[in-house]
Amino acid sequence: MSKNVKFVQGNEACALGAMYAGLDFYAGYPITPSTEIAETLAVQLPAAGKKFIQMEDEISSMCAIIGASLTGKKVMTATSGPGFSLKQEALGYAVMAEIPCVIVNVQRGGPSTGNPTHVSQGDVNQARWGCHGDHSIVALTASNHQDVFRMTVEAFNIAETYRTPVILLFDEVVGHMREKLLVPEEGEMPLVARLRTGVKEGVNYHPYLPREDGRLPMSDFGDVHRYNVTGLFHDMWGFPTDKPEVVRELLRHLVDKIENNAHKVAHYKTYFLDDAKTVLISYGSSARSALAIVETKRQRGERIGLLELNTIWPFPAHIVKKHTKKADLVGVVEMNTGQLTQAVKLAVNKPNKVHLINRYDCQLITEEDIKRTLKVLQGRGV
Amino acid sequence: MSKNVKFVQGNEACALGAMYAGLDFYAGYPITPSTEIAETLAVQLPAAGKKFIQMEDEISSMCAIIGASLTGKKVMTATSGPGFSLKQEALGYAVMAEIPCVIVNVQRGGPSTGNPTHVSQGDVNQARWGCHGDHSIVALTASNHQDVFRMTVEAFNIAETYRTPVILLFDEVVGHMREKLLVPEEGEMPLVARLRTGVKEGVNYHPYLPREDGRLPMSDFGDVHRYNVTGLFHDMWGFPTDKPEVVRELLRHLVDKIENNAHKVAHYKTYFLDDAKTVLISYGSSARSALAIVETKRQRGERIGLLELNTIWPFPAHIVKKHTKKADLVGVVEMNTGQLTQAVKLAVNKPNKVHLINRYDCQLITEEDIKRTLKVLQGRGV
Amino acid sequence: MSKNVKFVQGNEACALGAMYAGLDFYAGYPITPSTEIAETLAVQLPAAGKKFIQMEDEISSMCAIIGASLTGKKVMTATSGPGFSLKQEALGYAVMAEIPCVIVNVQRGGPSTGNPTHVSQGDVNQARWGCHGDHSIVALTASNHQDVFRMTVEAFNIAETYRTPVILLFDEVVGHMREKLLVPEEGEMPLVARLRTGVKEGVNYHPYLPREDGRLPMSDFGDVHRYNVTGLFHDMWGFPTDKPEVVRELLRHLVDKIENNAHKVAHYKTYFLDDAKTVLISYGSSARSALAIVETKRQRGERIGLLELNTIWPFPAHIVKKHTKKADLVGVVEMNTGQLTQAVKLAVNKPNKVHLINRYDCQLITEEDIKRTLKVLQGRGV
Amino acid sequence: MSKNVKFVQGNEACALGAMYAGLDFYAGYPITPSTEIAETLAVQLPAAGKKFIQMEDEISSMCAIIGASLTGKKVMTATSGPGFSLKQEALGYAVMAEIPCVIVNVQRGGPSTGNPTHVSQGDVNQARWGCHGDHSIVALTASNHQDVFRMTVEAFNIAETYRTPVILLFDEVVGHMREKLLVPEEGEMPLVARLRTGVKEGVNYHPYLPREDGRLPMSDFGDVHRYNVTGLFHDMWGFPTDKPEVVRELLRHLVDKIENNAHKVAHYKTYFLDDAKTVLISYGSSARSALAIVETKRQRGERIGLLELNTIWPFPAHIVKKHTKKADLVGVVEMNTGQLTQAVKLAVNKPNKVHLINRYDCQLITEEDIKRTLKVLQGRGV
Repeated sequence: MSKNVKFVQGNEACALGAMYAGLDFYAGYPITPSTEIAETLAVQLPAAGKKFIQMEDEISSMCAIIGASLTGKKVMTATSGPGFSLKQEALGYAVMAEIPCVIVNVQRGGPSTGNPTHVSQGDVNQARWGCHGDHSIVALTASNHQDVFRMTVEAFNIAETYRTPVILLFDEVVGHMREKLLVPEEGEMPLVARLRTGVKEGVNYHPYLPREDGRLPMSDFGDVHRYNVTGLFHDMWGFPTDKPEVVRELLRHLVDKIENNAHKVAHYKTYFLDDAKTVLISYGSSARSALAIVETKRQRGERIGLLELNTIWPFPAHIVKKHTKKADLVGVVEMNTGQLTQAVKLAVNKPNKVHLINRYDCQLITEEDIKRTLKVLQGRGV
Repeated sequence: MSKNVKFVQGNEACALGAMYAGLDFYAGYPITPSTEIAETLAVQLPAAGKKFIQMEDEISSMCAIIGASLTGKKVMTATSGPGFSLKQEALGYAVMAEIPCVIVNVQRGGPSTGNPTHVSQGDVNQARWGCHGDHSIVALTASNHQDVFRMTVEAFNIAETYRTPVILLFDEVVGHMREKLLVPEEGEMPLVARLRTGVKEGVNYHPYLPREDGRLPMSDFGDVHRYNVTGLFHDMWGFPTDKPEVVRELLRHLVDKIENNAHKVAHYKTYFLDDAKTVLISYGSSARSALAIVETKRQRGERIGLLELNTIWPFPAHIVKKHTKKADLVGVVEMNTGQLTQAVKLAVNKPNKVHLINRYDCQLITEEDIKRTLKVLQGRGV
Repeated sequence: MSKNVKFVQGNEACALGAMYAGLDFYAGYPITPSTEIAETLAVQLPAAGKKFIQMEDEISSMCAIIGASLTGKKVMTATSGPGFSLKQEALGYAVMAEIPCVIVNVQRGGPSTGNPTHVSQGDVNQARWGCHGDHSIVALTASNHQDVFRMTVEAFNIAETYRTPVILLFDEVVGHMREKLLVPEEGEMPLVARLRTGVKEGVNYHPYLPREDGRLPMSDFGDVHRYNVTGLFHDMWGFPTDKPEVVRELLRHLVDKIENNAHKVAHYKTYFLDDAKTVLISYGSSARSALAIVETKRQRGERIGLLELNTIWPFPAHIVKKHTKKADLVGVVEMNTGQLTQAVKLAVNKPNKVHLINRYDCQLITEEDIKRTLKVLQGRGV
Repeated sequence: MSKNVKFVQGNEACALGAMYAGLDFYAGYPITPSTEIAETLAVQLPAAGKKFIQMEDEISSMCAIIGASLTGKKVMTATSGPGFSLKQEALGYAVMAEIPCVIVNVQRGGPSTGNPTHVSQGDVNQARWGCHGDHSIVALTASNHQDVFRMTVEAFNIAETYRTPVILLFDEVVGHMREKLLVPEEGEMPLVARLRTGVKEGVNYHPYLPREDGRLPMSDFGDVHRYNVTGLFHDMWGFPTDKPEVVRELLRHLVDKIENNAHKVAHYKTYFLDDAKTVLISYGSSARSALAIVETKRQRGERIGLLELNTIWPFPAHIVKKHTKKADLVGVVEMNTGQLTQAVKLAVNKPNKVHLINRYDCQLITEEDIKRTLKVLQGRGV
């Protein structure tokens, strides 16, 4: 076996992807089912001369990576449901202050402490709307370890490109399952480096003055420039303001830098969609079951296909619309009471053709579960 | 002026409503623009022989009211954006453990510390999805002080009826504006008392065993019965379980007790809707401006009306559907980038006729703002 | 309690209906869950000076009533699944020879001996197609004892009017459940007497020569006329023939006398159909659960209604088409894998809007079962 | 003429096919027009050291082959209309107890004794629904002797593969017509042997415990294992049960093993379908006339084709759907009042384009008959 071929848990694949992406600093507080990410990085980061710190709680972990990111480091934290809720206030700070950072949420059953050791996809809408105030966010996911690795690298690239927190929204089954991972060679996957200002020492640096391409160069905090960073609405110097036109432009900027680039950050896979009359849409571990039923039914000649989403937020409405246009039935396969289904309904031409195919007892939805619901939806009863 | 007629801030109206509803215990940490609620109650509660406590932070405040509620008290806390984010983890605990409590969020500009002293309606979706895991929630709002009082009383009634947290989602303009309030006589508004178990001491009490009508009688914690309370999925004794069928039923129960009673908790007002071809939908302070433009245009013979929502979550889709059926144009007037507009689109028969009429620079949307946007929507240009 | 008010099993209601309709002769072989029909008639028929005979098996029972009918008697037999299968060959004889008779099948679980003591609606298509050769048939059912009585009387009326076997297709729940029955006064319900020929003794009587109105007068076999009766294709004297034009006309007649009178024999009930967007169609005991969910949902403002079919065959396609025209969703509630659903699909304008809502584990489908499937069909998952 | 080339009746072709397939045991009661099958086998089976028995009636014949099959033999019976009706009850037992067996019905005119010596296709729906209770069934047919032979072999293969009764639904014209038959060499057609259990004597054998591939290995009854066989719903040991979940799974299994393998048992032939705007669908002897008119019209350049079905049940909806997608007119050619036409309507995208082209006077439908009806359908009048 080549040294690049590994047989690992999804959580390890995430940690390896982060190392590949250039992770410098990890702060976290362990929580099932995300703990193996911290465990792996606790070994790998120091060995690479980088920093791993276990913090006293979830909030401090989030604050620590924000601070480290400001000093110029690529940063990450990982958690699960309750920890993700606790991080929301500081996450909103990172949104407002435009701090590149990656937050992993390996979803378990919720609400509250819920079902720590079992799977769920119940945090999909929280990833979008968990912190207060209008804003947009990027959230990626994956159904297999190659994609876990790939999306982790992509999360860092997006975070740096758009100066934004990026959420990796995995789930317990993907996190704990073991399968093959082929780690790419160095240079095989493009990496986005921190965009640093070209402004010299002694010259005014504007932390929130966009370049022509819309990107905001950063300056390592504590290095040559002095500037202000705040969670309040602020001007291009980072100073607080409540001038309506400045408030408006900043909020517009925070939303648009994500929504207007939805097509650039939209990652997805298509299976048998060309002639599909029934289109399944899924993500994360449930997409594995969705793919299984599609392959089974295709062998029997059914015109069914799968759209697997790796990018959940910003919701890739254009992709969903395109691939469901000719479908008679769109089934959204997810492990919750229908969170992404709503987004799909808003994206398609006929909302009535969108149906939820789900399970929410903290067990992986199976090929058989999907088959059974499809049967009902096709009018053939239980 | 009768002693029952008052000229107060909306925040005071909320505090007075809570006293009327039987508030026993308030714990909070002050934050603009909600602080006057705490100030008012800091005077009124002790004077009535009840408890007011200022806690060290937002999280402890939420935990304190959960504990007090379990001992049999009617409880409330109040906060604003950042504090609301910090409370999400404990709020999820209250959802899971089914603790009656009222949480007020007087919305200010966000995300993050945002714009503390100005108005926004940016936390609408966070109220729905702020804590992790699948769940449902009740959120009420109001555009005037009479309704602030009324909805506050209703929040306590709903919390007790369904053993659930209820969010009062006011906004800075309503909170700080002063206008007349007519406090109802004692007994004029019905109050829902805590439903206590009839099970005697020494007999097993099941904290999570529903009666025939679906309600769960409580026993004051620390009184005659011993029982378990947890944020984990649990059985009827309150003991943790990960049995799929129990997990499924509990989550189903938590969601259904809210969603299946959507019609019972749906509060709203209709203005000129009978023959309206243009229907505005609004809530909170923006509904004041929406009503103004409707009245103006009606005087000129336009067939325009307003549906003002007092209940935001569970979203009263049936009410929205009913009142927009014959409309050619539905305008959702809100002070954010379109959060409730999505819910309206999902509720109506033709999503394409739903348009957002908004402002999000932390200034109150005006009659003139709405008029300008309507003109464009009606094809008459800017 | 008036002597006309009774608290009885459905099987007793059927027996009482048969007595009311003028039953003269019953032959049968007891089989669960139909036995109480025989038990009741074993007492009532002799007491009324009429004939009850328990035969040695299912086939002889069917043959006995055919013979008795030919002699001018109103006749009935009752059975369940396996017995109904055994009667098919003689039932086909009654179709071909145009013998008025009533066959009750109180459905239990099948195929084969299946589940003798539990409910099913699995014989719906067998009632239509159980005997060989092209033909049509009348099959009636009911969901409550008043209708059991009423449909039993109607079965005798149809049998006599059209010289045809009529099947009463009840089910175990209706058969064994006890509820109130108000027995009509004598003369309150119209009864159709045997149509006897006016042809005198010594004049040629043509047993298969229709009157102008299409009806075929009978002559009591063994009385004044001699004539032939056969299961072969025959001419107006009853003599066998294979002349294509006679064969064609006879088959046409056998089919048309049923299908062309579908509107006259169509019995059904409508509940809340005027504005219903969701239309349930059901029959027998499952219609009770369907009515319950409709009433529950109507209280919450849902535009849902029920079409209860008392006549199953000939399928009342015109009624189904009319009442589902404006519906978005048609749910056929039945306790099998979708037998009547196919007929509904063939009757409506858009087959894709027809869905099966079913249960087939020999347990009564409940309001909750229907609610759950409707939830999936409405796209809201499990 | 090679010894493998024969000039025979269709009934003989069927008997020869059965011998080729490995028939061990035949029990039957003679009835026109199927009698030659019994006659042929009465000679051939004993000559091959196998068993032929003429029973006292139709029911006992069906029961005899069920018993023989259980002891490990390949079995068959043959009959026509009235006999087929009489066999329904025992046929349902074979469905429930999963007994491999082949039942031939050479269709004659019906209902009842009907027209014994002439042709019909009136038992198509009885083949599907003749026995009580929900179930599925396999029914094959053929229009020529090569296919009669081939489908007979296939009937045995399907019966053994799926442990199910298989019906051979021929018709009088095919049965009595003589034409060339080329009997395949031994080994030329694959044969499916009885799947016997590998479980040793003294170890528990579960007669109804499926292997991973869904098949149920059998143990020759009376050999080393003792086990229960019943027509009641049963568990994996064959013992009766009315547990809803076991009942549900068994019925699901009985239906699914047929319906889910519809694509595997779907035999059909296509003629000129690639560009056909008019598609005829037929089976049995009427397909001969349909092919004739298609060939005639093709010579004149009409875009017409034929889909000949050899498998009738489970209805090959996917095949019909696929081959009629681009057709403007679908004509179902059959000798009854439209039994398979209903199934075609349910399978196609636009039911209104499906028309019945038929004859039911017990005479073979001719090329001229079809031509005349097509003219009307194409709007060109009678």
